[in-house]
Amino acid sequence: MLEYDGTEFAGYQRQPGLRTVQGELEKCLARIAGERVKTVAAGRTDAGVHAVGQVVSFHTSGTIPVDRIVRAANSVLPRDVAVRAAEEVPDEFHARFSARSRVYQYTVVESSSRLALVGRYAYVVYDRVDDAAMREASQALVGVHDFGGLALKENGEAAVRDVKRVQVVRRGRMVQITIEANAFLRSMARFVAFALLEVGFGRLSRGDLERILETGERHVPLKPAPPQGLCLVKVNY
Amino acid sequence: MLEYDGTEFAGYQRQPGLRTVQGELEKCLARIAGERVKTVAAGRTDAGVHAVGQVVSFHTSGTIPVDRIVRAANSVLPRDVAVRAAEEVPDEFHARFSARSRVYQYTVVESSSRLALVGRYAYVVYDRVDDAAMREASQALVGVHDFGGLALKENGEAAVRDVKRVQVVRRGRMVQITIEANAFLRSMARFVAFALLEVGFGRLSRGDLERILETGERHVPLKPAPPQGLCLVKVNY
Repeated sequence: MLEYDGTEFAGYQRQPGLRTVQGELEKCLARIAGERVKTVAAGRTDAGVHAVGQVVSFHTSGTIPVDRIVRAANSVLPRDVAVRAAEEVPDEFHARFSARSRVYQYTVVESSSRLALVGRYAYVVYDRVDDAAMREASQALVGVHDFGGLALKENGEAAVRDVKRVQVVRRGRMVQITIEANAFLRSMARFVAFALLEVGFGRLSRGDLERILETGERHVPLKPAPPQGLCLVKVNY
Repeated sequence: MLEYDGTEFAGYQRQPGLRTVQGELEKCLARIAGERVKTVAAGRTDAGVHAVGQVVSFHTSGTIPVDRIVRAANSVLPRDVAVRAAEEVPDEFHARFSARSRVYQYTVVESSSRLALVGRYAYVVYDRVDDAAMREASQALVGVHDFGGLALKENGEAAVRDVKRVQVVRRGRMVQITIEANAFLRSMARFVAFALLEVGFGRLSRGDLERILETGERHVPLKPAPPQGLCLVKVNY
């Protein structure tokens, strides 16, 4: 299980010439396993997105005992990535395909003026958001729908996903959206957060969300909410 | 009122050739006031220490209305500094000398393995700390004492300070120390946090703290706790 601060990464997935979480992790694992290691992750988070519960699996014929991996990896990894736990799994385990669901959390902080401290791990908005309206509209997302209108969809890709729950919780000036789904399309969690915030600002209705899910197309302008508000919190197997 | 993320600053106070909060702020104020501005701050925080409630005063003959300062300053300041509020004050107001007390908070997070996310705003410790022992011992600090043994003392400087309250609160794996004093010596809040943590680890007793305060000298090895755990939260006038 992996935790990282996404701020200075070009996303999870390895890309030539860019600093990625997978790149740093595989470099580290090669060093401690003494051989090249290919990893598979449960969620390929976007650039700037954080994780506290990313799950990564890999095969190795290296001889490092599993109970040493946490300390060994953490002594090699950069400051913004940390291994929280490691365990041996059956051969057929696959961090991505074995996952039953992923849980993402999006954090919004309301502030009438700019903030310097929370902006690294939250999206700061200047207006008040109507969390009750967001909570009500969010229930339209629950269930099996075509999320093509709420994601960056690759051509021809099936876009049907099963959203198991969406929660909108306010704690003072902080509003947190929790989304659990069997799987997520690219940038889907950020599109969902953006669409719900549009509801919170009164610019979108539950009906709009329902139409997007029925048609699989966005008939209103939507974009992904800023990445720093998003965190992959848990993967269920 | 100023908020800042101290991570990338060489402290609050202006120093030639270094990136400081005061340096950035005065550069910004010169731009919006159209003249050189000298500021005075309530607390000159160490390198790496954060603030959510720093108070800064200055005189200007510039003509910018006070209700425009927040927006104007925030449009010029770097991402890691933000002005939260601005108001006109009587001529005799002095952010430093008029302050009755300062409140600092030190945040510790217990974790058996390394963390990647909270380490920017907290001190991560690998062992459990005994917060009850810390709470009990912390009461020895309350009152008027010679804090020379719990600070970086300049030669000949008077080291008597009035600590109004110390609170130690646990929330799950997070332990927060709140210290309010009329004024703080250099690095005093970090020395106090370190000494209390030594109590929490069972390496120091309340009696040790009492002896340090009676003699004004540290008879045991102490150093300032890491800066990233500390935040100047409030200044009272």
